[in-house]
Amino acid sequence: MGYDLQAIILELLDWLGTIAFAVSGAMVGVRKRFDLFGVLFLAFVVSVAGGMIRDVLIGAIPPAAMTEIHYFVIAVLSGLATFFWSAHIVHYQRLMQFLDALGLALFAVVGTQKAIQFGIHPVMSALMGMITGIGGGMIRDVLSGEIPFVLRADLYALAALMAGAVVALGHAFQLPPVYPVLAGAGLCMFLRMMAIFHGWRAPLPRPIHDE
Amino acid sequence: MGYDLQAIILELLDWLGTIAFAVSGAMVGVRKRFDLFGVLFLAFVVSVAGGMIRDVLIGAIPPAAMTEIHYFVIAVLSGLATFFWSAHIVHYQRLMQFLDALGLALFAVVGTQKAIQFGIHPVMSALMGMITGIGGGMIRDVLSGEIPFVLRADLYALAALMAGAVVALGHAFQLPPVYPVLAGAGLCMFLRMMAIFHGWRAPLPRPIHDE
Amino acid sequence: MGYDLQAIILELLDWLGTIAFAVSGAMVGVRKRFDLFGVLFLAFVVSVAGGMIRDVLIGAIPPAAMTEIHYFVIAVLSGLATFFWSAHIVHYQRLMQFLDALGLALFAVVGTQKAIQFGIHPVMSALMGMITGIGGGMIRDVLSGEIPFVLRADLYALAALMAGAVVALGHAFQLPPVYPVLAGAGLCMFLRMMAIFHGWRAPLPRPIHDE
Repeated sequence: MGYDLQAIILELLDWLGTIAFAVSGAMVGVRKRFDLFGVLFLAFVVSVAGGMIRDVLIGAIPPAAMTEIHYFVIAVLSGLATFFWSAHIVHYQRLMQFLDALGLALFAVVGTQKAIQFGIHPVMSALMGMITGIGGGMIRDVLSGEIPFVLRADLYALAALMAGAVVALGHAFQLPPVYPVLAGAGLCMFLRMMAIFHGWRAPLPRPIHDE
Repeated sequence: MGYDLQAIILELLDWLGTIAFAVSGAMVGVRKRFDLFGVLFLAFVVSVAGGMIRDVLIGAIPPAAMTEIHYFVIAVLSGLATFFWSAHIVHYQRLMQFLDALGLALFAVVGTQKAIQFGIHPVMSALMGMITGIGGGMIRDVLSGEIPFVLRADLYALAALMAGAVVALGHAFQLPPVYPVLAGAGLCMFLRMMAIFHGWRAPLPRPIHDE
Repeated sequence: MGYDLQAIILELLDWLGTIAFAVSGAMVGVRKRFDLFGVLFLAFVVSVAGGMIRDVLIGAIPPAAMTEIHYFVIAVLSGLATFFWSAHIVHYQRLMQFLDALGLALFAVVGTQKAIQFGIHPVMSALMGMITGIGGGMIRDVLSGEIPFVLRADLYALAALMAGAVVALGHAFQLPPVYPVLAGAGLCMFLRMMAIFHGWRAPLPRPIHDE
């Protein structure tokens, strides 16, 4: 695959992830009965916050979502569509979960790849990929007054970290980025689907009796 | 108007906004029965957090509130005054709402202007103005265990964004900053007053029935 | 004391603080019944978040916890140990409070010292030391859906600020850093112990009657 095609694929995945997370953020705003503006704000925050945190931490300042206006445009259009069609969207729970898993997978691999390009240690790059994937959802839940779903959902942050690890390993073996990126995203989606449909989960701590 | 006078006006507006938000933050601390130190901490956080987030995102690092000590001094003095006079301040609800609207308006226009000076796209600059205005209140509410008021209040974040948009438009038409800054701040205060006294609000989403 | 020995002592204090906070974060995850991964995530966040906020605000980007991998390793190992031994750890409440006070003291002095080295004003450096000490706990509590303990606990943030003030004063008097660092950490621990065992606290605001 030529370099141009790879760059285009990475770009497309990034756009898709932005749409998926903007819709997911906007739906939370609709459920919480925020007004139109609050809904658009959540759509924007959820779709760019993870990437912004990553960019600040890896030293890519100003963050991409500040300098490239298309993130804002995509998020606002997705938020508007969600606001007006929420009554329909709500009937497609499975599709929403699939979109969310897709966004998680895409952001995790794209985020890891960007951190590697900025010279961050591969282990921390995988973590940055995870933050890119779960950061928006964490902020969405904190702003909605809830304990972040992403910290408790079955194999959620872990799936994002695995995706990042695949990309980091691919870099260590000097593979062209697009293959580990696709493989990592696939692994992340697989883990989330197994968690949703087959109840896969990470070990729980033993209950504590101290009261 | 000469450049010096313009700079002095912008500086004065920034100080006024800092006082307004420090008092608003300190009052929340008093209501939640934080101790003296917690009250001062909230006064400081609410008055500088929005600007700090903006500065980090536009690449103005370290943020102004780190390098210019007067923000800290103003916030602590305002917090102290609030701590000791809270029993009086609480009787002036309308004055407090007015001060809060003033702080919102001033921070939104000053924040937008700063982002423009750092070469940020006008659309994102207006958003950064909004973040400057609502950031402190968002963090205040999250730290107090509540869903941010600024995301649900009638025309709150929207009023700040409108103020930023006026400043960004003024920049596009190459007006001297002080005029759109004053016009934007006026528009923001007008919108907030209409929301408070006449119940103006943004459209709400249709209720969702999915349980 | 030679420079090397001083540097080693500062480094050791930083490691100890990281362990103390990683264990404290992991215990919260265990109590909230997060899974293994959530527990490790909280261990990492609580131990590095304060330092990351400080580093971003003083312009030390990427933050040390991004570029030096040992923070990650220490946090994960401490989190793993806590996950498996939580049933034992829970019986040592006093030890946990002592460890937490130790972490607070160490992070406050090390954080202040780093801010001073980056040319930040001494007053703001002391504040940055406080943020280093309380930042992780603030984020831990917000992510767990609670009002931050660090803002309400008796002499918690204040003890950290006092520690930072001692380091900042030492710098003003051009003392070699290691002495004010140890003195500041000692003062912080003393204040926390007095708060825990003798109920020392900061003044409370008068109750507000407005409903």
